[in-house]
Amino acid sequence: MKRLNLLFWATVSLLWLTTAHAQAGGHPSLVLTKAGVEKIRAELGNVPLFDATVARVREEVDAEIERGIDTPIPKDFSGGYTHERHKRNFLILPKAGALYQILEDEKYAVYVRDMLFQYEAMYKDLPLHPQTRSYARGKLFWQCLNDANWLLYVSQAYDAIYEWLSAEERHRLEANLFRPFADFLSLENPQFFNRIHNHSTWGNAAVGMIGLVMNDEELVHRALYGLDDNGSDFEARDNDGGFIRREGQAAGFLANLEEPFSPDGYYTEGPYYQRYAMYPFLMFAQSLNNVKPELGILEYKDGVLLKAIDALLNLSDADGEFFPLNDAQKGMSYFSRSLVSAVDIAYHSGGNDPRLLDIAERQGEVTLDDAGFSVALGIREGGARPFVKRSVNLSDGPRGQQGGVAILRADEGFTLVFKYSAQGLSHGHYDKLSFSLYENGKEVLQDYGLVRFVNIEQKGGGNYLPENTSWAKQTIAHNTLTLNESSHFGGKYEIGSRHHSELYFFDVANPDVQVVSATDTNAYPGTHMHRTMALIRDSRFERPFVLDLLRTSAEERKQHDLPFWFMGQHLETNFDLETPTQLHPLGEQNGYQHLFLEARARPSTDNAQFQWMREGAFYTLTSAVDANDELLFTRLGANDPDFNLRRDAALILRRDSASESLFATVIESHGSYSPVSELTVNPRGSLAQIRVIRDDKDYTAVLLTDRQDFSSVFILSNQEPSESAMHRVRAGGREFSWQGPFHYTKWE
Amino acid sequence: MKRLNLLFWATVSLLWLTTAHAQAGGHPSLVLTKAGVEKIRAELGNVPLFDATVARVREEVDAEIERGIDTPIPKDFSGGYTHERHKRNFLILPKAGALYQILEDEKYAVYVRDMLFQYEAMYKDLPLHPQTRSYARGKLFWQCLNDANWLLYVSQAYDAIYEWLSAEERHRLEANLFRPFADFLSLENPQFFNRIHNHSTWGNAAVGMIGLVMNDEELVHRALYGLDDNGSDFEARDNDGGFIRREGQAAGFLANLEEPFSPDGYYTEGPYYQRYAMYPFLMFAQSLNNVKPELGILEYKDGVLLKAIDALLNLSDADGEFFPLNDAQKGMSYFSRSLVSAVDIAYHSGGNDPRLLDIAERQGEVTLDDAGFSVALGIREGGARPFVKRSVNLSDGPRGQQGGVAILRADEGFTLVFKYSAQGLSHGHYDKLSFSLYENGKEVLQDYGLVRFVNIEQKGGGNYLPENTSWAKQTIAHNTLTLNESSHFGGKYEIGSRHHSELYFFDVANPDVQVVSATDTNAYPGTHMHRTMALIRDSRFERPFVLDLLRTSAEERKQHDLPFWFMGQHLETNFDLETPTQLHPLGEQNGYQHLFLEARARPSTDNAQFQWMREGAFYTLTSAVDANDELLFTRLGANDPDFNLRRDAALILRRDSASESLFATVIESHGSYSPVSELTVNPRGSLAQIRVIRDDKDYTAVLLTDRQDFSSVFILSNQEPSESAMHRVRAGGREFSWQGPFHYTKWE
Repeated sequence: MKRLNLLFWATVSLLWLTTAHAQAGGHPSLVLTKAGVEKIRAELGNVPLFDATVARVREEVDAEIERGIDTPIPKDFSGGYTHERHKRNFLILPKAGALYQILEDEKYAVYVRDMLFQYEAMYKDLPLHPQTRSYARGKLFWQCLNDANWLLYVSQAYDAIYEWLSAEERHRLEANLFRPFADFLSLENPQFFNRIHNHSTWGNAAVGMIGLVMNDEELVHRALYGLDDNGSDFEARDNDGGFIRREGQAAGFLANLEEPFSPDGYYTEGPYYQRYAMYPFLMFAQSLNNVKPELGILEYKDGVLLKAIDALLNLSDADGEFFPLNDAQKGMSYFSRSLVSAVDIAYHSGGNDPRLLDIAERQGEVTLDDAGFSVALGIREGGARPFVKRSVNLSDGPRGQQGGVAILRADEGFTLVFKYSAQGLSHGHYDKLSFSLYENGKEVLQDYGLVRFVNIEQKGGGNYLPENTSWAKQTIAHNTLTLNESSHFGGKYEIGSRHHSELYFFDVANPDVQVVSATDTNAYPGTHMHRTMALIRDSRFERPFVLDLLRTSAEERKQHDLPFWFMGQHLETNFDLETPTQLHPLGEQNGYQHLFLEARARPSTDNAQFQWMREGAFYTLTSAVDANDELLFTRLGANDPDFNLRRDAALILRRDSASESLFATVIESHGSYSPVSELTVNPRGSLAQIRVIRDDKDYTAVLLTDRQDFSSVFILSNQEPSESAMHRVRAGGREFSWQGPFHYTKWE
Repeated sequence: MKRLNLLFWATVSLLWLTTAHAQAGGHPSLVLTKAGVEKIRAELGNVPLFDATVARVREEVDAEIERGIDTPIPKDFSGGYTHERHKRNFLILPKAGALYQILEDEKYAVYVRDMLFQYEAMYKDLPLHPQTRSYARGKLFWQCLNDANWLLYVSQAYDAIYEWLSAEERHRLEANLFRPFADFLSLENPQFFNRIHNHSTWGNAAVGMIGLVMNDEELVHRALYGLDDNGSDFEARDNDGGFIRREGQAAGFLANLEEPFSPDGYYTEGPYYQRYAMYPFLMFAQSLNNVKPELGILEYKDGVLLKAIDALLNLSDADGEFFPLNDAQKGMSYFSRSLVSAVDIAYHSGGNDPRLLDIAERQGEVTLDDAGFSVALGIREGGARPFVKRSVNLSDGPRGQQGGVAILRADEGFTLVFKYSAQGLSHGHYDKLSFSLYENGKEVLQDYGLVRFVNIEQKGGGNYLPENTSWAKQTIAHNTLTLNESSHFGGKYEIGSRHHSELYFFDVANPDVQVVSATDTNAYPGTHMHRTMALIRDSRFERPFVLDLLRTSAEERKQHDLPFWFMGQHLETNFDLETPTQLHPLGEQNGYQHLFLEARARPSTDNAQFQWMREGAFYTLTSAVDANDELLFTRLGANDPDFNLRRDAALILRRDSASESLFATVIESHGSYSPVSELTVNPRGSLAQIRVIRDDKDYTAVLLTDRQDFSSVFILSNQEPSESAMHRVRAGGREFSWQGPFHYTKWE
């Protein structure tokens, strides 16, 4: 399939390269086109959101022009002056270019030209950036990645003033700046350019876009297909520990489109990096689409790029913030500029889905190009329809066969994110079958995210910090099972990269009982883990609750640690805490060295119950426990000499278990509290008890009894995920029969 | 002065009591009056904010009527069902009464009557509440305080249906419910009724209001003047450790109005309790004002009640949340229902200040009475003017001679709260000369507040927790100086209550250099503490910064600990941290037992610099230090067996110092960060160094040098706070001359 795609594309591109000189639309030609500019000029002043964006951008660019041009000799890491200045320059240049086209005011063209010639004067003799940390050092920035950002943005600015410049000026810029810049990013840095990685996507797209502007067929070809593998080092790693390149792997933009995206549009590194990678993907794709619409780049792999935008919007919470799967800085959201571009392009070139106008309205801005103009027009015409996020299962892997990420949503504001994906390249975490829970955009049970303060100089130059490896990637940092205090795959990337979890089933047909279930047999060789998570709406409970059944079968006795990284204020437990006066790290490695043990306990009954509250809501976790289980309250922050870690807390259920074990847990949200009215409503949950009434290789059944002594039962088939299979089962002295992999019913 | 006031009032009241039977306005007569009702009915449907409130309240009351009346046998603490149910009842009753009057729909009168008779049937034989914790147990609730709440609210409901009831019904209610209820709160609980305390204010007002409705002169007199002191126990304490009563102290509503309010309207317990106490003060006062306007209760003590509302509004941050001085739960704000009443009454009866309409608009609701109607009319007429909070100095003490609280504000969003007040009765903290700092409603350097989860049953029944005494009240919990690990006044209430700090000067004439300065000589006998805090706007700095000069002179060498309770993420220090692998409590008592030591350091230069960030802004603290000083990073949470404490952090400057010592510190806010754009602006402060160039008993002078090597100097006269005094001083080799207690100028 993949080979066929590439073969087809090689043919198409051959055809195209021979006709490339026929490209006659003139400039601008990339995301802002000559035809688009005409339409925009004709409607200017009559399209509120576009006009508002023009006014805001104009203010911003005018202020920069006022401030004067500065292209300092590169020296700083991100967060430092030279880094931030060059970044600011590449962000402002295309804006100035667009303003020149839209407003026909030459001062913007002059500004772009003058800055480009300052770069041209500097670039010829510019050595590598003095900071040596990167596996692929840039010239303007400490890493090629940021240089590629520069070229991708600046190519748009050059495109905008291309026709305004004299042929001699264009020649100087191309010969002294753009062509050497593109060669530096590609020929001189194959370890950067020739990967399957978001770094390469930026490199490919940057080289391709400047190639399109310059009408340089060689550069465009290089962008699409990468470099020859001569001299590649297949053992080399990047700064994050990821492999640079596998032998025989395809390279270039198309290969980067092929591999990391699943057919559902899930990007294997996770939404935070997808958001970052979307920009070069879409800018180059949209440019190709404009310059050569007959190539149908947006239909490539069944329209995966447009699907990816939809997937990404669905991978956000109620506030539009992306779920921090794998390495991800919290707070990143669909308000970021790359998502403004993505949404505008998806609307403009993806069939005018009116729900996208809803997102664009919230974003409150559009791009200053053909796509942004389409969106602003659509909004003006009142075309927006609500973008309602629903439960969704997104496969991972190039062919959708490497696990995935499932999202269960209930209208009351609950979102459960369940991860049973592949490793996620070098930004992946060792967190098979982990989950996080949100209520109305608030984290209830969190995924930690990364340990990095992006662009904050004081924190290691804004780069990844050591605790990202020693803590954030480790299994214990996630709401999933750690055995014997060792992370999944021994925390080894080369092993984790070979494996993925398997979907058992995903069923959201009944909005009152939505279930996802997956297994993993590779995270701990010899151990079979099977986790089933249900979001259940039951009139006996105030709000939908989460039922979590995590079953393990192993060859030998092991220590099981299942943490719940709760957010908020500890209220009460139904077991007595033993709290040490001095705090010691819980362990020595694999993340445990970062945890202080604040309290430990043994269960007082066959259920352990813990209540906490956050921002006006109460939460209760109830878990069926054995008398020998331990309950540990841990606090992050041990062995953290630079204060890089947040002081977050978890309740860890610890069990020394023989071959088979079941963690059966219910998480409820209930009641409310206001510090203004000081009124407390329903501070205690509805559940009185969860009891395991059957658990063997064939079936798991739990009985949920509420405080009014009403009960319901959830039964899971452990062998048969099929929707059509019929079951007849005895559990708790009664007989149940149903069709499909699970059954939830009243116990009467 | 106080005696005169009381004498005057005794005379007035004699006059009044003899004419009380002449009260002829009819019912309702308290805050909703017969005349007011007529006006309301005439305009109903044409006053948007009032109409909206009626609609909302109607929906609420209708839902309660639908649910049915429940008056359970009392048994629970706050947070428990019976407590919350009776609370809900007393809140809903006056609303139903008002709806009956406004809408003329009898179903509301029926609802009030039926519930009152359920209470009447229950009350006769009701024993004391079974919970025994309170020094003054109630009947419906665990403490008389809540019973007084009930009576105060319910008296309004009774007033609303008074004329609708038959004489026989009124007789039954008064004989079996209201009169015994009022006697219980007063005669039977003098330890509750006869204090100078917010508890008594509630009791007095409740008894007074039901007295007004019943036209019961004895009850009204008792409310105004309290009970005779026969049999009072002058050694007794309440549950918070406060004295019940001092010998010879006046009692009753007027005495409670006299003592805790300063002439500026500052309430000595602090804004959180002022907010709570304002409701009974204002409801009874407004009722007296309506029933007997000739008494001029609102002009009492130069209009202190109306001044108090203005003071209280000024004691809130940008979001309307009150500064958590003394015992105070964070998040309480002017959106609370008692402030809706207060603002409406202040507008209606205090001269129609149009700025109050601004607050009322933000509150989005009004009271369903004459005052609320006035406000809604004012807003309808477009009368609102912005309520701009300014720098203000509020004296403490009945005659304004017991220190105070100063608030320095800069338009850029900064608010510095400086506390040099009296003890604040039993809710006071041992925090002389402490401060907190806000930026746009966010805490930058916090005051911890209380250790209590009000009305949250799981946390000690919602009552004060042991850590309120062992932690929250202790000096080290505040941004002020602790000597020898012992709290101010040895943490002894009886000593603290005798003393207060003294204002040195307060000068906000120049909006660019606002300064407050105060001294304390009693917190540590033999030690003179002098703290000067300036909020300075200087074009060399991005935003206004805080200069903090804390000078001590003592008879002997002592350990000085000055904490800064910073909020946010630790970024960087200019000194090397030594971080232990195990955490130990920093000390054994006086709050130190609750602090874990996370890191310690010695200064690397003569300045210690610490940078942190919070919600998109950067902060830098720079302090002039000695080589032998220690820098301690502490984390709250040690010896906290029930997880009652937040895990907040402080940087403590520790100095073993001989007779004289100066802590000179600058706190800057600068730059910005967005997790969406990941753009960092100005992550480093402007200040390079703070240097003490003179410090002796006469003058203190510091030199502030920025990163561009520009300097300014701040000089303080340590002996002469007068505005008119002329100074000529040598410092740092130069001569300065100026008029007034301080001088800030460029160093050129």
